[in-house]
Amino acid sequence: MATAPTTKDVLYIGIDGGGSKCRASIYSAADELLGTGVGGPANPLHGVERTLESMQTATELALADAGLPSSLKSELIAGIGLAGVNLPSLFQIINQWRHPFARMHLTTDLHIACLGAHKKNEGAVLVAGTGSCGYAWKDGQSLVLGAHGFPFGDQCSGAWMGLEAIKAVLLASDGLGPDTGMRERIEDMLQAKGVMIVDKMAGATSREYARFAILVLDAAEADDPVARRILQEGADYLSAVANRLWNTGVSRMSFIGGLSQRLIPWLDESVARRLSEPLAPPEYGAVFFAREQ
Amino acid sequence: MATAPTTKDVLYIGIDGGGSKCRASIYSAADELLGTGVGGPANPLHGVERTLESMQTATELALADAGLPSSLKSELIAGIGLAGVNLPSLFQIINQWRHPFARMHLTTDLHIACLGAHKKNEGAVLVAGTGSCGYAWKDGQSLVLGAHGFPFGDQCSGAWMGLEAIKAVLLASDGLGPDTGMRERIEDMLQAKGVMIVDKMAGATSREYARFAILVLDAAEADDPVARRILQEGADYLSAVANRLWNTGVSRMSFIGGLSQRLIPWLDESVARRLSEPLAPPEYGAVFFAREQ
Repeated sequence: MATAPTTKDVLYIGIDGGGSKCRASIYSAADELLGTGVGGPANPLHGVERTLESMQTATELALADAGLPSSLKSELIAGIGLAGVNLPSLFQIINQWRHPFARMHLTTDLHIACLGAHKKNEGAVLVAGTGSCGYAWKDGQSLVLGAHGFPFGDQCSGAWMGLEAIKAVLLASDGLGPDTGMRERIEDMLQAKGVMIVDKMAGATSREYARFAILVLDAAEADDPVARRILQEGADYLSAVANRLWNTGVSRMSFIGGLSQRLIPWLDESVARRLSEPLAPPEYGAVFFAREQ
Repeated sequence: MATAPTTKDVLYIGIDGGGSKCRASIYSAADELLGTGVGGPANPLHGVERTLESMQTATELALADAGLPSSLKSELIAGIGLAGVNLPSLFQIINQWRHPFARMHLTTDLHIACLGAHKKNEGAVLVAGTGSCGYAWKDGQSLVLGAHGFPFGDQCSGAWMGLEAIKAVLLASDGLGPDTGMRERIEDMLQAKGVMIVDKMAGATSREYARFAILVLDAAEADDPVARRILQEGADYLSAVANRLWNTGVSRMSFIGGLSQRLIPWLDESVARRLSEPLAPPEYGAVFFAREQ
C-alpha cells in the first residue's frame, strides 16, 4: 500500500476526455497511481460547459478515491487530453478555462493515448471503438488519419459497422441484397422490420449505431458472408492506416479502443504481428505530457 | 385561355408534399389546369404543423393563381400525396386533420407520382432527387423499394452522392485513397480542407449533402475515376430496383426526380430503353386518386 502523500509532494492529475466519459487519475511524482474518478461526457465539440463539469466531477472523485481533500485541487499539475481540441477554436476555448489546478497542460485525446501506450515521446496508435482513427507522434509532429467522425468515415469503428449492418439489412429486406443472419438479430433488438427500422433509427447518434458492432463481429466470426464483407472492408482500411503510420518512422504501435482485441484477426497479418500492448492508459499519458512541458 | 369556372363546377385540388416544398394545382372536372401554388416543406416526419401550414399556403396561392376566391376552398375535393405517410402513425395524424376542403383523400407522394406519370391505375416510378427509391402500383397493391432516407440507403440520390464524394475526398486528403478532381471543387465550395471539411459538414442535412451531386455528375462525365465509381455503384442499385419493379408485371415505368435525366446514361441499357416519359405531374396524380375514391 502507498504511503499517504502529504501536501508537500508534487502531485499530477491526468484527464482523458471523450464523447461518452471522462477519466481522471492522480499520480505521485514517482508515477504511483493514487486514485481514479470517472465523470460524464467531455467532448467540447458536443458542449463546452458539459466538458468542464465532467472534468471537475472526475477530479473530485479521483481526489476522494485517493483519500485526499478536495482543497488539494489547487496544488495539482494537470495534463488534459480531449477529443475535439484538434480544432483550433475549441483548443483556445478550453485553454482559456479558469481551471482550479496549479497548472494545466492541454492536448488531444489521441496524443495522450499515444504517450501512455508507449511511455515515451514517440509512437503510434490505431484506435477502434465508437469511432476509429490512426495517430503517430514523431519528432514533435503529429499525423492524424481518419478521426473524421460519423457518418463521413471512421471505417471499422463501431458506429460504421452498425450503419453498414443496417444498410445491408434494409437491402436484404427489399430483396436487393443477400440475406444475412444479422437481419433477425437487428429486428429483434429494434423490435422492428423493414422500413420501421428506419423509423427507429432516424436521427440516431454514433453511439446508438455502435450498439450493433458486437453483433456484426459475432456474425462475421460465425462466417456470415455479409458481415464478413463489412468487417473485411473496415479492417483493410485500418491496415492501410497502420501502414501509413509506420511510414512516419515510429518504433512502436498499439491498437486501442473497445473493439481492438476482436479486430486483430481481421488485420493484415504483417500489421497484426507488429502491434505492441499499450504500456499505460491515456490518463498516464496526460501526466507524462504535463511533466514534459 | 380557360373560361372562368363558376362555383357550380366540381373542382379538384391535387397536393404533392415533400421535404423541401409543397405544390398544389387546381383542376376542373374536365382535367383542365386552372392554377398552381407552391408552399414550404410538407414532410410530416419533419413536422406536422409545418406540413399543414405549407399545404394551406399552397392552396391559397393556387386559388389566387386560378383567379378564384379563397372561400372556394370549402368546395374543393382534395387529393393529397405526402412523404412520410407510409408510416401508419403519420397517416393517421394527417388523415384526422380538420381540413378546409369539401373532402380529402390522402396517400403517399410516391403513389400520386406514379398515378400522374401513367395517368392510369398501374405503373412504376424510379425516383432520384435528394432521395431515391422505386415504387410500383399494380392490382391495388404497392411495392416500395428503398425510400429509407439518409444515411441508411438512398443509393444514387443526391444526398448519397454528396456523402460518398465527401468520404472519397477525406480518404484522398489522408493519402488513403486515390485523389479526385472533386477534392478541389469541394474544398472551394466549403472553403475548407481535410478535417475542416468535417467541421463544416457536421450535422448537415440530406439537402446540404445533395448540393454536391451535380459536382459528382460533372466529374464522372469528365471521366474522373473516383466519381465514375460512385455513380456506377449508385446507378447499378437503381437498375436493380427497376428490374424488381418490372417483375411486378407493370406495363409502364418512368424515371423522375431532379437527377433523373443525367442518370439515364448510367443505368443498364436494358433498363434505360424501357423508360417512358411521365405523362402528368404528381399533383395531377393526386387529383386522379381523389376521383377514383
